[in-house]
Amino acid sequence: MSTEQTGPIKGFWTVIPAGGSGTRLWPLSRSGSPKFLHDLTGSGWSLLQGTVDRLAPLSEDRLLIATGLRHAPEVRQQLPDLGIDSLLVEPSPRESMPAIGLAAAILEQRDPDAIIGSFAADHVIRDVESFRVSVREAIAVARTGRLVTIGIEPKGPATGFGYIKLGKPLDVEGAPSAHGVDSFVEKPDVETARSYLASGEYRWNAGMFVFRASMLLDMLDHYQPGLASDLRSIADNPLRLTELWPRLTEIAIDKALAEPAAADGRVAVIPGHFDWDDVGDFDSLGSLLSESLDGVKVLGNVDDVVAEDTTGVIAPRSGRVVVTLGVKDIIVVDTPDALLVTTRERAQDVKSVVQRLKSGGRGELV
Amino acid sequence: MSTEQTGPIKGFWTVIPAGGSGTRLWPLSRSGSPKFLHDLTGSGWSLLQGTVDRLAPLSEDRLLIATGLRHAPEVRQQLPDLGIDSLLVEPSPRESMPAIGLAAAILEQRDPDAIIGSFAADHVIRDVESFRVSVREAIAVARTGRLVTIGIEPKGPATGFGYIKLGKPLDVEGAPSAHGVDSFVEKPDVETARSYLASGEYRWNAGMFVFRASMLLDMLDHYQPGLASDLRSIADNPLRLTELWPRLTEIAIDKALAEPAAADGRVAVIPGHFDWDDVGDFDSLGSLLSESLDGVKVLGNVDDVVAEDTTGVIAPRSGRVVVTLGVKDIIVVDTPDALLVTTRERAQDVKSVVQRLKSGGRGELV
Repeated sequence: MSTEQTGPIKGFWTVIPAGGSGTRLWPLSRSGSPKFLHDLTGSGWSLLQGTVDRLAPLSEDRLLIATGLRHAPEVRQQLPDLGIDSLLVEPSPRESMPAIGLAAAILEQRDPDAIIGSFAADHVIRDVESFRVSVREAIAVARTGRLVTIGIEPKGPATGFGYIKLGKPLDVEGAPSAHGVDSFVEKPDVETARSYLASGEYRWNAGMFVFRASMLLDMLDHYQPGLASDLRSIADNPLRLTELWPRLTEIAIDKALAEPAAADGRVAVIPGHFDWDDVGDFDSLGSLLSESLDGVKVLGNVDDVVAEDTTGVIAPRSGRVVVTLGVKDIIVVDTPDALLVTTRERAQDVKSVVQRLKSGGRGELV
Repeated sequence: MSTEQTGPIKGFWTVIPAGGSGTRLWPLSRSGSPKFLHDLTGSGWSLLQGTVDRLAPLSEDRLLIATGLRHAPEVRQQLPDLGIDSLLVEPSPRESMPAIGLAAAILEQRDPDAIIGSFAADHVIRDVESFRVSVREAIAVARTGRLVTIGIEPKGPATGFGYIKLGKPLDVEGAPSAHGVDSFVEKPDVETARSYLASGEYRWNAGMFVFRASMLLDMLDHYQPGLASDLRSIADNPLRLTELWPRLTEIAIDKALAEPAAADGRVAVIPGHFDWDDVGDFDSLGSLLSESLDGVKVLGNVDDVVAEDTTGVIAPRSGRVVVTLGVKDIIVVDTPDALLVTTRERAQDVKSVVQRLKSGGRGELV
């Protein structure tokens, strides 16, 4: 029992949907180079590499990464040990359900008892041990035939995430903290978020799902019958991928499965106690970085920064020297073809400025 | 009489000391490329070119520019019509008295009655007509044998300039506004500056001097005898420039002549009524520029800037796009090898940060 709790888990597969355009981290991330390909924490590894490393002790080389055509070469480059069969290249973006569903259909054939854990490629988790404890619990519950999610303890009344309302505790061996899921709720306004926080009954939805591959497809067959059979057809005959992919419903797994299945009492949650961040904008990024200089968090070469009376985040990514003086909570992102100067307070609005760039004929920079 | 008031002035020579390192406008100006070589107002002309243009209607091609060894090629390039004899290249920086004194010694030989007006290369004056009226008055007074300055009407209790205390009105034909000078005073603290402003008896010292060449040297011979004779020796035998230059006293004209001569009642002032700015820092530069975008003054290509909820000065000088969001009174200066982000309020402290760069081993950027 104790060896099982620290070693790899038989039949457990990691699936990593690696997508997203991430314009709120522009000009660090671009549509051609989304955030999962970047080292955003100064760790020396990209978020994708960090995600793979986090799961490897549990699933070893049982790994499948689903990414876009455009990013496949860079993914291969960042993960030179990735197996031939471990990269699933989507012909076009189609949201998370087709990607995760196809991974399930493929793995169902490779291993009929496969348990899949699906984790986004661009999230940051520091307390890896605690994360793995939650995943082990989720796997134990997934073996009972449920769709399992891991819910994050809210750090505040965030309005940028969906929430999971806890149901009753479950009695599953190896999963002492498992609960049922009452419902998934969409991004709330701040007042609603505050009431969620006060109640203690809600967790952030971090899009982590753990499930038996065949169960997921059977469940999908119930809620989205055409989609499930198309995915199984592709898995049976992978040559049909490019033919069938365009007609798959473009839908997130939350909408397609998690919400209706929760209403039917078929979803469980493991409340996680680890830190978690989706690096949604530069403010969030600022919270993840440690101070390199007095008051300043530098993402890049600290020798390229001279900061006086400055607080905030500076990303010197062009090799030029960046000098700041008397600016507070500032964000300076310096890249070879574009410069962004804003504040942590306005970080979430970067998206709209990038939209302006695009509509102003500077789309090549986005 | 009326033709004389609009045409060139016989025997009047313009001398332009073109020096200064100007670190407060870093990284726009550098030690190898000081501000007089730059177009800082978006006029299409450098400050030096603007200075030459401002004086040309009065002195025609009677012009002598004194500059450093390092800047001579760029001065020649910016002023392709500059005569062979119109550039005086100083072997090393030696403050303003040796430069202006040598110009006087040289011009005294070319034209024994020469009247010289000496004006810094890096000041901005918009109201050129009013400036020229003051210069004409100053020349009229200089013909009476006095050292004449032009004093600027203070716009506020500035602590960055020296002041001139007005003496009694003078009775000189062609110079109705001329006064004697009671004294030159150094940069005051803000309280003293306020009292100067309130009294109405003080003018800013903009370093403008008008004088008969031979008078200046005779006067200098009185206050700094060795210096005057060395300067005349060089003018007699220009080959001795490099030999004698290093031993010349390094001193400003204010200290060497203006202050002691004022005490002896030999200095006059024309109170000028034109706008004047020495573009001392980015805040001052911001006041000179007109708005290119809503709230933002752009020094460069306005198409390279996307500014939302922004006020301040943006200088896009690297060809990259500069995006700002939610930053107020900001200064962003983007050059190919260095970036500065500060505020108008802190503009005067840029100098000290540049000092840090220098002492931190990045002197090549300064």
